[in-house]
Amino acid sequence: MADIQAIAKQFTDFYYTAFDNDRTQLQALYRDHSMLTWEGTPIQGAAAIGEKLAGLPFQKVQHKITTFDAQPSSPSIASLIVSVTGLLLVDDGENPLQYSQVFQLIPDNGNYYVFNDIFRLNLG
Amino acid sequence: MADIQAIAKQFTDFYYTAFDNDRTQLQALYRDHSMLTWEGTPIQGAAAIGEKLAGLPFQKVQHKITTFDAQPSSPSIASLIVSVTGLLLVDDGENPLQYSQVFQLIPDNGNYYVFNDIFRLNLG
Repeated sequence: MADIQAIAKQFTDFYYTAFDNDRTQLQALYRDHSMLTWEGTPIQGAAAIGEKLAGLPFQKVQHKITTFDAQPSSPSIASLIVSVTGLLLVDDGENPLQYSQVFQLIPDNGNYYVFNDIFRLNLG
Repeated sequence: MADIQAIAKQFTDFYYTAFDNDRTQLQALYRDHSMLTWEGTPIQGAAAIGEKLAGLPFQKVQHKITTFDAQPSSPSIASLIVSVTGLLLVDDGENPLQYSQVFQLIPDNGNYYVFNDIFRLNLG
């Protein structure tokens, strides 16, 4: 499990740093069969996902991870599920928003791509 | 995607009804290679997971689902990832707790079992 946790940490560090600093970097993490469900809206494929993420109407955004957990997601390949809860600070707003995000990462030539991505704000 | 959403709804309805009414039913949803990460604690196998869930120190508990999302989790088998956010009402407490839970469900003889389960309260 140690490796899985380290991979998950490395991925989430990279992902949220890219998200908060240059969202155009995110598209490269997805493939044509990748899926994003963003606040209930399903989006398929790296191009459409990259466009959605780059076009989100934030001027400035910062993620703070509260918890992350990882598990192997397959008995046969070295894929993993990463579940994140955290706070989203948008446009210097004073009230951070809680969010939950789940990724499934699939190994690919010594690296990983995002096959599944589900994002929700926890407004309840 | 329609079937996936229907399966996810059916599963979450069953899971939380069992959890809230008779937690001893939950063990049958897991297999020996299943994993639960409960508030950061990893637990493996149906027997250990069943024991953990049955032994949680609630007298009375009620889940209210706020959002659930589902995606296919494999290009080759009909497995799915289900991500849930909701409220947990414990022992008639007045302050419901927000939680996030992720499942991966694997098809098995016309039914599904839980391979991955990650649960977190959102206390942040």
